[in-house]
Amino acid sequence: MGMTMSEKILAKAAGHSNVKAGDIVWVKADIAMMHDLLGPWLIDGGFRRLGGKLFDKEKVVVVSDHCTPPATVQQADILKFTRDWARDQGLPYYYEFEGPCHQVIVEHGHVRPGRLILGTDSHTCMAGGLGAFATGIGSTEMIGVLLTGETWMKVPETIKVIWDGELPHGVYAKDIVLKTIKDIGHAGATYQTIEFSGSAIKSLSMDERLVLSNMAVEAGAKTGLIEPDETVIEFLRSKGVDDGLETVRSDEDASYAQILHYNASELEPQVACPHEVDNVHPISAVEGKAVDQVYLGSCTNGRISDLRVAAEILKGKKIAKNIRCLVVPASQHIWMEANKEGILEILTEAGCIVNMPSCGACGGFTSGVIGAGEVVMSSSNRNFRGRMGSSEGEVYLGSPAAVAATAIEGKITDPRKYLLQGVR
Amino acid sequence: MGMTMSEKILAKAAGHSNVKAGDIVWVKADIAMMHDLLGPWLIDGGFRRLGGKLFDKEKVVVVSDHCTPPATVQQADILKFTRDWARDQGLPYYYEFEGPCHQVIVEHGHVRPGRLILGTDSHTCMAGGLGAFATGIGSTEMIGVLLTGETWMKVPETIKVIWDGELPHGVYAKDIVLKTIKDIGHAGATYQTIEFSGSAIKSLSMDERLVLSNMAVEAGAKTGLIEPDETVIEFLRSKGVDDGLETVRSDEDASYAQILHYNASELEPQVACPHEVDNVHPISAVEGKAVDQVYLGSCTNGRISDLRVAAEILKGKKIAKNIRCLVVPASQHIWMEANKEGILEILTEAGCIVNMPSCGACGGFTSGVIGAGEVVMSSSNRNFRGRMGSSEGEVYLGSPAAVAATAIEGKITDPRKYLLQGVR
Repeated sequence: MGMTMSEKILAKAAGHSNVKAGDIVWVKADIAMMHDLLGPWLIDGGFRRLGGKLFDKEKVVVVSDHCTPPATVQQADILKFTRDWARDQGLPYYYEFEGPCHQVIVEHGHVRPGRLILGTDSHTCMAGGLGAFATGIGSTEMIGVLLTGETWMKVPETIKVIWDGELPHGVYAKDIVLKTIKDIGHAGATYQTIEFSGSAIKSLSMDERLVLSNMAVEAGAKTGLIEPDETVIEFLRSKGVDDGLETVRSDEDASYAQILHYNASELEPQVACPHEVDNVHPISAVEGKAVDQVYLGSCTNGRISDLRVAAEILKGKKIAKNIRCLVVPASQHIWMEANKEGILEILTEAGCIVNMPSCGACGGFTSGVIGAGEVVMSSSNRNFRGRMGSSEGEVYLGSPAAVAATAIEGKITDPRKYLLQGVR
Repeated sequence: MGMTMSEKILAKAAGHSNVKAGDIVWVKADIAMMHDLLGPWLIDGGFRRLGGKLFDKEKVVVVSDHCTPPATVQQADILKFTRDWARDQGLPYYYEFEGPCHQVIVEHGHVRPGRLILGTDSHTCMAGGLGAFATGIGSTEMIGVLLTGETWMKVPETIKVIWDGELPHGVYAKDIVLKTIKDIGHAGATYQTIEFSGSAIKSLSMDERLVLSNMAVEAGAKTGLIEPDETVIEFLRSKGVDDGLETVRSDEDASYAQILHYNASELEPQVACPHEVDNVHPISAVEGKAVDQVYLGSCTNGRISDLRVAAEILKGKKIAKNIRCLVVPASQHIWMEANKEGILEILTEAGCIVNMPSCGACGGFTSGVIGAGEVVMSSSNRNFRGRMGSSEGEVYLGSPAAVAATAIEGKITDPRKYLLQGVR
């Protein structure tokens, strides 16, 4: 019997030659990642009571992203605590004001194929886009990982999601993952791995693959995996990584809990409607819905390719009156790249506001929180009640292209209306 | 007996040919300005109970700046209330996400020489840099102004502050005003006008003049005035204003409560130390003080000339490790201008974070609030306990050049060390 990617990575992390779904295994983390909000300030007491000595400084990465820039004294205090803790522990890898942790650890080369990455954030699974088994754990569980480098885990079953064919013009990874989540349901993959494969997935850029793995948790999945190939290897080499570039793949005869098969060429732009991420409809079903705010950013869809397509749509145009369009690049690196390319100029000329990279409004923390009765069209990953602020607000999720087109009209708009032929 | 600028403007606003300091007069406002935090959401109830009809829509300007971008649901609700109120009232002049109100009303041509401008913010006095009598009023008082266009006022005495001579290299309007406030004291000009004059003032750019008038209230003054000249007229013309460009000046034989005379050529860079804005010392007295954050922005010193001098200092350099440097242009217009000039690229290459224009961290509202034990060097206007966040934080105020030099070293630094000869 063959093994899935999940089984192979966890077998290696457990020091076994073979594990199968359902096994309980002790695994060693390659990277333990914490952010400011669910990291040091929360667990320091327990960590100290149990010895207070890190298993391996080189394998602990801390990213302050939820409280940057601080909007309250409490956030500022948390940020300071986190910074001081990282310094006191002598951590070589502490990042702040660089953007959401999931993007930052990818850009800095901490994520590599076959690694086991444990992080105190549910979207840690994004690293699966490079072929790492990456998953969110609770902060209490992180105490044990920090002290021993280990935790136990049940090896998950895998749902294989195959997207073959070519994505139509104006349709993106975001549409793929929204459609997938619709079919699986927001809790349909609980404690399972989603493995994305097929020719449509294979042809996606690194940026786009990360959209899929990022949102795997929105179907309840423990992680979202894509077989690492030359796209991943080239990306890592571009970031200065030249070791740990082995690939890992599921065996032909691996066993799956479920296999879903799609034809990408039939997919239309999708929108997740309030208040569940699996409440997904083709954009035609919600076209014309008026919005108050448009949000282009987040670790899900704030990368350079996302900003490029938005700029293509918004170039020479103006956003609708009486709405605001907030642009939040997924990292400081992307901010600077977009600026060099003239994208920020195009977007601000169109009337967008460009903010600094942070988790910000996506999680309702800072910098664009919504009030009662407000409607947002967002490129981010969650739309449950209160996610971006008021529980009486409404959040629609779509691709960056759909978000940009919506900004022009002030109501939900099919991006294909504004995309020139041939632009992707 | 001649009249001061204050007396002349208030005489006109009162419909009299002559008033003198100490007179109680009924005056008509040319502009009634409110912002989100101290505007509609606070006064709407009283305003409606008293009739709810604006005296003149064309003269009411509302700027949402304190709650943009919202960091909490309450801020978002206030912002939405303000936006809806402006729409329901049919206001032709409502601005949001454009930056602090004081800068926005200047850029949009609402401020003109000789006007009486009443606003629900203490730094409304900034408009005095164009020769308007501009002052902050309470929100309750604003209800009456909105309904009738009028209020009563005691004509203030004037302190004349003369700065002759040429400012040395590396010394700016911020240093002039800090030194002035030191000598007058933080309440020394209560209910008085400060009139800045002399050859050093005459040679200042529009940007720099606004620093002086902005901070007049930090000495307790009702407004800060500068005689409008060709610099002001040219600035207004560049903004598309072609009427209301009359100048106004104090008569030779006007009467002053006090006259202070300075030689600008003897001035060194100044720093206001915690926790009072009149606790001012030459920068040499505090050089070497370690900081956690550097803040380059605000309606006081976030204009294009401020960003230019910071870029001159930071070009090709890196900010110190373990500090963060937040750059917040004073308006969206300035953000875009700075981006076109390559300034934002220079600043981000140096390690700065560029945020969207807003009142933000200057007032401790959003986007860079400080925690207990943190020290900030800021180009903003206030440093009392808790102003930028925690009451256990410390805020030092200096010029943008001093702020930029401090960013490089991570400790308070004389900007003249980093300024090339001839650069101003």
